[in-house]
Amino acid sequence: MLARTCLPIALMIALALPAFADDAKKSATPTAKELLAKASPADWRTPDPQNLVYMDLPQGRVIIELAQDWSPLHAANIRTLIREHYFDGTQVIRVQDNFVTQWGDPDGDDKKKAKSLGTAKETLPPEFTRKDGKPFPFTKLPDGDVYAPEVGFSDGFPVARDKGEAWITHCYGTVGVARDVGAETGNGSSLYAIIGQAPRNLDRNLAVAGKVLKGMDLLSAYPRGGEPMGFYDKPDQRVTIKSVRLAADVPEAERTPIQVLRTDSKTFSAVIEAKRNRKDPFYARPAGKIDLCNISVPVRDPSENAH
Amino acid sequence: MLARTCLPIALMIALALPAFADDAKKSATPTAKELLAKASPADWRTPDPQNLVYMDLPQGRVIIELAQDWSPLHAANIRTLIREHYFDGTQVIRVQDNFVTQWGDPDGDDKKKAKSLGTAKETLPPEFTRKDGKPFPFTKLPDGDVYAPEVGFSDGFPVARDKGEAWITHCYGTVGVARDVGAETGNGSSLYAIIGQAPRNLDRNLAVAGKVLKGMDLLSAYPRGGEPMGFYDKPDQRVTIKSVRLAADVPEAERTPIQVLRTDSKTFSAVIEAKRNRKDPFYARPAGKIDLCNISVPVRDPSENAH
Repeated sequence: MLARTCLPIALMIALALPAFADDAKKSATPTAKELLAKASPADWRTPDPQNLVYMDLPQGRVIIELAQDWSPLHAANIRTLIREHYFDGTQVIRVQDNFVTQWGDPDGDDKKKAKSLGTAKETLPPEFTRKDGKPFPFTKLPDGDVYAPEVGFSDGFPVARDKGEAWITHCYGTVGVARDVGAETGNGSSLYAIIGQAPRNLDRNLAVAGKVLKGMDLLSAYPRGGEPMGFYDKPDQRVTIKSVRLAADVPEAERTPIQVLRTDSKTFSAVIEAKRNRKDPFYARPAGKIDLCNISVPVRDPSENAH
Repeated sequence: MLARTCLPIALMIALALPAFADDAKKSATPTAKELLAKASPADWRTPDPQNLVYMDLPQGRVIIELAQDWSPLHAANIRTLIREHYFDGTQVIRVQDNFVTQWGDPDGDDKKKAKSLGTAKETLPPEFTRKDGKPFPFTKLPDGDVYAPEVGFSDGFPVARDKGEAWITHCYGTVGVARDVGAETGNGSSLYAIIGQAPRNLDRNLAVAGKVLKGMDLLSAYPRGGEPMGFYDKPDQRVTIKSVRLAADVPEAERTPIQVLRTDSKTFSAVIEAKRNRKDPFYARPAGKIDLCNISVPVRDPSENAH
């Protein structure tokens, strides 16, 4: 028994951890962990390797799923940059507390010194939102949202919709496309991951490239930079990216096994319900509500779950 | 010009940084930074040194303001623990990504090995909420909340109220009292700070001891622990706390100068408005809304601002 350690709290929060250990409490209603243990194989999807990015840092691997359906032009440009090994040797240039970790070419702003983008495009149409005309998968959340009239999940991404538009929201782990002032100046050569309270004011002002499926614990724990906006004041503080590869370009045997819970599955809805109304000896007062960015879509290593 | 670096975004987010540098953009409406520069000295308050905690870590000082009006019994017990130097040599025992950093006695769960609490109490009444009968300062936010019918700020703390009850919410930087399953088992000897998306489901289930005014950049950047719930699996991964002192017990000349923007000031309301409706060449589409936990109450070093 771990006294004074918020054990059950963490249990609930940890539901997104695939290998979460065996310290679950018995409770009246099934916990997220119990629901995930009972999920059928069909509840899990294997992301398309064309949309899966492996970013290898000295501390380990970060896996990002590209938002192909939401920012296809950016996904294509990022694939080009990856395939031409643009990112290899680029760096984590900025960590601003409770905001973003950003990586790219530290000399990207200096036209004379900037690394060549190769055959990738220098500018792209914004793709900040998409027209909400064509139907897309949408699991609506029941508790509303401060920023948009409707929020939920679509193929694993947290999304909002309003007046004929839809967009991926800036939640913890969302990966966005850094840009200059002009809306078309983003090209995917510098990306950021959200590492704090969801800065939803970025929604609809920046293109979302995808989200981190694995490795947020690495991206969020780098020292914060001492310059304004978290830029590192000394070049040796920057972490150098070993390589960035598309899973599709890695021999199948060498890929990192990963699956994501389908957000249109009954299991996912039950997990949300379990989080909204968790009630057990520790949680005397369930919130009865949940905010979009408080929901982590569960991810697992299928090789650990095969029976 | 910092191309592709989200410059204006960070400006907005950085409004809580007292010494934020001189890279503000000219914009049509005053920015938070401009508003703070024009704030009158009366807009700033100096926290009571009896409520100010200095936690000295090897990486620097964390300053916490105790929530005397919200959890007076816990504040008193924490003062006793501090004055008897209980925390000196205790450790950061757990860092769980997107959740909490927790510190205390790593052997606190083992009655045979646990450090003595001295004259401090072992258990306390919960103080998870307070009765909302007696008036208290309250600057209400205009955009609602997913979890509570009414939210705002009270003397610098983010608070919610509902049906005759009020409580400090678990936002980034909120410091809570870890406990065992029993509601009265928290005593302040182990505390946690929120380092991720606000886990508002903790509200009303745990006592809030206060909030971090300075040093979140340290508490949030420790390596995440490898054990379930972010506990460190190897003892040498734990960071040892050098000392914890009450500002009131430190000679005045040696105190860290710090002031907090009054949350009942017109400047604070204007800063919120500037954040809700930031519109400039970068932000084509202001959110027009803001969530409680997206507002950082500005803090400054008055010695840097004296003219």
